[in-house]
This record gives sequence, structure tokens and C-alpha cells, in this order.
Amino acid sequence: MNKSNYTKRDEKELYEDQVEGRNAVLELLESGKDINKIFIEKGDKQGSINKIIRIAKERKIVITEIDKSKFNVMAQTANPQGVIAVVPPFDYCDIYDIISLAKEKKEDLFVLILDGIEDPHNLGSIIRTAETAGVHGIIIPKRRAASVNSTVVKVSAGAVEYMKIARVNNINDAINTLKKEGVWICGTDIDTNKYYYNQDLTGPLAIVIGSEGYGMSRLVKENCDFLVKIPMKGKITSLNASVSTGIVVYEAVKQKNIK
Amino acid sequence: MNKSNYTKRDEKELYEDQVEGRNAVLELLESGKDINKIFIEKGDKQGSINKIIRIAKERKIVITEIDKSKFNVMAQTANPQGVIAVVPPFDYCDIYDIISLAKEKKEDLFVLILDGIEDPHNLGSIIRTAETAGVHGIIIPKRRAASVNSTVVKVSAGAVEYMKIARVNNINDAINTLKKEGVWICGTDIDTNKYYYNQDLTGPLAIVIGSEGYGMSRLVKENCDFLVKIPMKGKITSLNASVSTGIVVYEAVKQKNIK
Repeated sequence: MNKSNYTKRDEKELYEDQVEGRNAVLELLESGKDINKIFIEKGDKQGSINKIIRIAKERKIVITEIDKSKFNVMAQTANPQGVIAVVPPFDYCDIYDIISLAKEKKEDLFVLILDGIEDPHNLGSIIRTAETAGVHGIIIPKRRAASVNSTVVKVSAGAVEYMKIARVNNINDAINTLKKEGVWICGTDIDTNKYYYNQDLTGPLAIVIGSEGYGMSRLVKENCDFLVKIPMKGKITSLNASVSTGIVVYEAVKQKNIK
Repeated sequence: MNKSNYTKRDEKELYEDQVEGRNAVLELLESGKDINKIFIEKGDKQGSINKIIRIAKERKIVITEIDKSKFNVMAQTANPQGVIAVVPPFDYCDIYDIISLAKEKKEDLFVLILDGIEDPHNLGSIIRTAETAGVHGIIIPKRRAASVNSTVVKVSAGAVEYMKIARVNNINDAINTLKKEGVWICGTDIDTNKYYYNQDLTGPLAIVIGSEGYGMSRLVKENCDFLVKIPMKGKITSLNASVSTGIVVYEAVKQKNIK
């Protein structure tokens, strides 16, 4: 996660990742990682809050005291214990950065498109899988989906730092951009007869994973070049999103390796 | 989850699954699911605790008031809010029940052995994958591993109800029992040159998954007939345990389907 030059326009995004609670902020301070600012609730300072203030001052981090009412509006967790650290947001890339990376490596473009993954645990686990599978980049939507936060970073086992992630306004526009690069768009859906292992997944490829509850949106599904499904032999009719991603992504890895 | 006839000897296991906190216990009460007993902390009864008592009485569930000190010893979560519901434990099966199921279905035995999965989220997700993949049963160790609790049930998306799970004292004894049935034991480990997709996984098969942090224990690894690994192309050197389980289990499903 690199620092960027922030403009006024970026301020909303800038404030989206917060670390809250005394122990969490203390750990963050002691790790030496970047912190933009620390907010502390006005009032008596007791216990570890004084340690936080001392270390923050040593590290020359700006501390701002705010009223309880303002503090409560700002807090994103149930029990922030009077302290919020604002950390630099994840540095998203552009879809063309992903395309360039594959060209640099002289590899067939290999992309994951997440059409509405909402659970940060799933997003983190998918980023980890993508990194180990040699995926060049992940495309996620700006709205109605999990974005990279501290849970995602943790669950990804650090893979977030090595993965190019583009956050786009419109998934179909991203698909069309990829199609112009000669990429095949493979959707995952139960509404097909084709098992994933009967589909040729070699060559430039984007695998689309739908949301946990509803799968891919209709327009995205129609925009796919082909659909594949995973056989379901039991009474439960779906897999966890990060598990099904792993199964299909690694089928592509296998076909690319054996080719 | 069936009710069993409990004996005195089972009492420790009987009390191992607790639902704690006012909202959680209220939801449980309203769901109509089995509750063995409710423990309430002695003292003033305010707010939703009275609603809990009322519904519990309607459902003729035994309510026991206990001292704060005893209550705190009993609680397993940080904030039980003065109420603990004790629910019937998961009804584990015997390893021979799993063997019989495969024989009944006239299928090659297909078993998952979890050698120390500690995270209930991983256990739940693995049970879900096993159910959709047509695995006949899962073997887990009694010690140093996650067992079926309410988190596991939830994450499994209900698959726990359809899956035979045997909890054994010794994983190697279980492996030896399976070997006598003609089952091939496939370990997953990075310490091999064989990729999972280059290994014949047809016929009676048990796939062994190691713990999140340390993989399989040395003795279990030595007891495997062969080891397979998943290719890792990035900087992160391991996958989430439930994802790697999905990848190897579904390779076996594929080979069985295509055979």
C-alpha cells in the first residue's frame, strides 16, 4: 500500500479506513505503519489512552480531540474506546495497469472480476487465492461490494500488498475493455450445462464471480462469452464464494500449466 | 442434529455448546430449536432478560439462576449479558457409519480427514464443500481442533445436518482403519513434487488436510500413501485451508465424474 498525493476530491476515500479501539491503535502505532491522524474523544484521559498520545507525539502524528457526539458519528465499530486512527486507504490501480502487468510478464492476461462480493472475509480469501494462482489483477465494483479494509488485508495473509486491484464504476464497461484486449470472459453460474473442467480455460481469461447471495447480475451474465458451473452432489446448492473461486481459478492454472 | 440418550459420562460433552448473549438467546428461543437449559446471572432483571424468561417458561425450558462468580466461570464469550443457553451437542458418528454409508450407496468411499483445523469458519466452510462434493464423511480429532459449534453450523450453510462427522482420539488409528477398507490416503503438503492434478484420485480415497498453521503432523504425513501439492505462483506460500480443501476435493470429484 503506497501513499498517494491526495486531493480534496479524494478526502472521502481517504477517511474510509479507520482503526478503532485502544489495543488496536496501540498495536498500529507500535508497528510503525503509516497513520494519517488520530482522533480522541474529549474528556478525562485514563489508562492506555495516555500511552497512545505519548507514542503518537513521538511519531509526530496529528492528534485531534473531538466532542463525544462528533466522535460517535465518526466511529464505525461498536466499542471504539475513545480513539480512532485514520490510515491511508488502499491504493487501487487502473484496469490498464493490470493489462500492462500481463504484457510486461509476457503472459496471457489472467483476471478475476468480482461482481458484488460483500463479505470482507471472502474478498480477503479470494485475493490470497488470486495471488498464489498468478492472477494479474482483480476488478471489483465501487458500489454494493466489499472494498479493501483492515479485515480484508488480514484475511488475505498479506496478499493485498502484491495484488493489483481496480475498483470500477461499471463492471460491464470493464468487461468490454478486456474483450477489446482479446480476453475471454468466463462467468460462473448454475444456469448452464457446462462443468468448469470441460471448458478450455487457456489463453487470455477473465473469470467472473457473482455475489454471495445472488450470483452475477443479469447484464454481466449476458456479457460473458461462456458460463461454467461446479457439480453439486449434495443437498446444499452452493459453495462458499471463496471456495468456488479457488476451484475454477485453479482449473485455469492447471490447464495453463499442462498446455 | 438428533437428540441422543445422554448418560452421566456424556455430561461434559453435553455442556460444550452454549449460546450466550441476550439477542442470540432470544433468537434461539424464537427459532423453536432445542434448548437443554438456560442459566441466568443472579441480580436485577431488566429489559430483554424478562422476555427471555417469559418465552423460556412458555416453552417449559428449565431456568437456573446462578451467582455472578459461577456464571463468569461458565461463560465462554466476552460479553454474555447475564444469559447462557445450553444446547444439545452435535451428534457425532462412528467411522464405521461413514464406511457403511458408502457401501449402502454402492460408491467408492470418499472421506475427508482434518488433522487439526482450528478455525470454526474453516471447519464450517469445509463441511459445506464436502457436502456439495458428495463426500461420505469427515474425520476430525477430539483434541486441539475445532469441533462443531454454532459458528460451524452457521458457516456450513446447514450442511452440518447432512454430513457424517466422526470425532476420533487418534487420526492415525482412523487412517489405519480406512486402509484396511482399501482406501488410498492422500496427504496435502508442500513437501512433494507431485501436483494434485497429476495424481490419480479415483477409487476409494481419503484426503488429509493439515492444520492452518502447521500442516499435517509428522506421523500422519508418514502414514499417507502419497502426497500432493497445489502450485503456488506468487509471494504468498499458502492458501486458506478451506480453499485448498475445495481445490483438491473437486479434482477428485472431476476425476470420478470423467472416469
